[in-house]
Amino acid sequence: MSVRIDVGLGPRSYAIHAGAGVLAQAGNLLAPFARGTVPVVSDENVAVRHLPALQNALTAAGIQNRPIVLPPGEGTKSFAGLESLCTALLESGVERGGLIIALGGGVIGDLTGFAAGVLKRGIAFAQIPTTLLAQVDSSVGGKTAINTAQGKNLIGMFHQPRIVLADVTTLTTLPPRELRAGYAEVVKYGALGDEDFFGWLETNGAKVVSGDTQARIHAVAHSCKMKADIVARDEREAGERALLNLGHTFGHALEAATGYSERLLHGEGVAVGMALALRLSARLNLCPVNDVVRLERHLRTVGLPAAIADIPGPRPAADVLIAHMAHDKKAEGGKLTFILTRGLGKAFVTQDVPDDALHEILSA
Amino acid sequence: MSVRIDVGLGPRSYAIHAGAGVLAQAGNLLAPFARGTVPVVSDENVAVRHLPALQNALTAAGIQNRPIVLPPGEGTKSFAGLESLCTALLESGVERGGLIIALGGGVIGDLTGFAAGVLKRGIAFAQIPTTLLAQVDSSVGGKTAINTAQGKNLIGMFHQPRIVLADVTTLTTLPPRELRAGYAEVVKYGALGDEDFFGWLETNGAKVVSGDTQARIHAVAHSCKMKADIVARDEREAGERALLNLGHTFGHALEAATGYSERLLHGEGVAVGMALALRLSARLNLCPVNDVVRLERHLRTVGLPAAIADIPGPRPAADVLIAHMAHDKKAEGGKLTFILTRGLGKAFVTQDVPDDALHEILSA
Repeated sequence: MSVRIDVGLGPRSYAIHAGAGVLAQAGNLLAPFARGTVPVVSDENVAVRHLPALQNALTAAGIQNRPIVLPPGEGTKSFAGLESLCTALLESGVERGGLIIALGGGVIGDLTGFAAGVLKRGIAFAQIPTTLLAQVDSSVGGKTAINTAQGKNLIGMFHQPRIVLADVTTLTTLPPRELRAGYAEVVKYGALGDEDFFGWLETNGAKVVSGDTQARIHAVAHSCKMKADIVARDEREAGERALLNLGHTFGHALEAATGYSERLLHGEGVAVGMALALRLSARLNLCPVNDVVRLERHLRTVGLPAAIADIPGPRPAADVLIAHMAHDKKAEGGKLTFILTRGLGKAFVTQDVPDDALHEILSA
Repeated sequence: MSVRIDVGLGPRSYAIHAGAGVLAQAGNLLAPFARGTVPVVSDENVAVRHLPALQNALTAAGIQNRPIVLPPGEGTKSFAGLESLCTALLESGVERGGLIIALGGGVIGDLTGFAAGVLKRGIAFAQIPTTLLAQVDSSVGGKTAINTAQGKNLIGMFHQPRIVLADVTTLTTLPPRELRAGYAEVVKYGALGDEDFFGWLETNGAKVVSGDTQARIHAVAHSCKMKADIVARDEREAGERALLNLGHTFGHALEAATGYSERLLHGEGVAVGMALALRLSARLNLCPVNDVVRLERHLRTVGLPAAIADIPGPRPAADVLIAHMAHDKKAEGGKLTFILTRGLGKAFVTQDVPDDALHEILSA
């Protein structure tokens, strides 16, 4: 069973297939785009779990394929990792009119998309995300990047995939904490633009987290649909697409302040960041206090942090967090950009946040 | 005195200003695109000759600028060079809505354009080419790239500049051999699509090479106009743009076979490559022999090589050259692509070349 979602981007349009068993159908779904030898990029952890099934599906459809297995972890998303992947891809014999497959989480998808975008000035690629975070967020929309010493995702490009295959059965092998962190991005869609979906999550979120297949398909498909519609209207983040950063300016600052360590996964940072964004919105009399309460309660119900105090270890100081926020790539002319909200489902972009209110929220 | 040429690419349209004294007007010409601190990327050789004049022009127009000076030579156009330039650009404080300037030849333009294209997923950049090759070819059309062990320009992207300033007065400091090599690309425009321009070059080419300012402005402006029109019709090289590769498939193979050494500069390879393309066309009864004679005579008149035998050192074998051609990034499905011609000004793309004719031309 699967759902098809279309991302309408003119000549760069593509389909997302979200469901259970999509991986087994990968051969037929990818055949229209494959040509010559198709490299399949994954990491050591993902390769053990899902590469044989994908290779079987490809081979059964007559698609020649060649695995490229990278070391797992964020360190691979670097200049060194990009160079090494580009070298492997050039040696794989992939043609300019061919296809590259990314099989894995956000690191593999972001890195492979970037490498595909610059290899011979652009080769088509397919995203097969195997984490909840990648299925609902990073595999859709064409943002690719690597990290540098100056920050995360500072070097990259927009390169849309040709197709996205999100198979929720791959989520059964995810560590529970990583799955919950990915779920924070699902909550984000409700919080930023769809109060009804937020309500559905309040009722069904526990099932999504605990492993109910139908609930997972609905959560992934609805999240992808919301992202697809926003990206179709604003591919390059000139406006509305920035709403997808709800919780991310705070979240990135928290990740930086905790050293991008096991103390705080990206999705956990987004969870705390969303709670901070809603609290700041309420402090500025923009958002009903009850919506802040609903968000915090739902995050905690599924086991996610909802306040800076929920992060283990020493608490990052407000000034440190603000300094990290000023380094964000979206900071322009010294002004910070915030995604605030007029209530659940009603996010908007603003640069108009008084310093004292910001300090108060980060110190509370 | 300068000529303005428009590259019509919809939202990515831009102007080329070709003339004498354009560098001194850079402040006013770049002011509409500048914002915050503007990094100026050049190499050690170019910086000595032209950076002070550019910085004066920028400062006079109130544009804050910060030079980044790289080591000269093709070695800078590498993954290591890209990483080091990206780091310097991130530390320069350039904003996402800002501008980066490339001041130099093809290496600086290709590398800086690529870095600008991937920095924060894309920052605007200006090309100020200081070699004849860069002025008539590499600075226009948005192709950016670096080299790898597998070949030249295999990693890169299309990133159009926001404006191109081609000041022919910068050519007076070029070594004569490098200027002649760049002139081969000027000859290419006549040979591929404009017999009248080829005739003008037969009469005025010696003046272009020896330093006549008006002749240089006309040669640069007309070449840019021809390239601009082709790029506007086929930005991503789906068809017609491939004509700009006249002489390049042979030329790249000759460069590779001579180890990318001082034995053969890129433009010299293009000169020999064009002569081979016309000779192959005549051998296939596509092109009048007299046009081959005219091309070879004109190349030799200005001091360029026009045959493999003109290259100093041991002669590369036909099989070696064909093997290099098969590695070209345009090779697809094992078929080589050639730009042949039905006479001066009448180039076309084909994959239909008999092996024996190719061998004969490369062995003759």
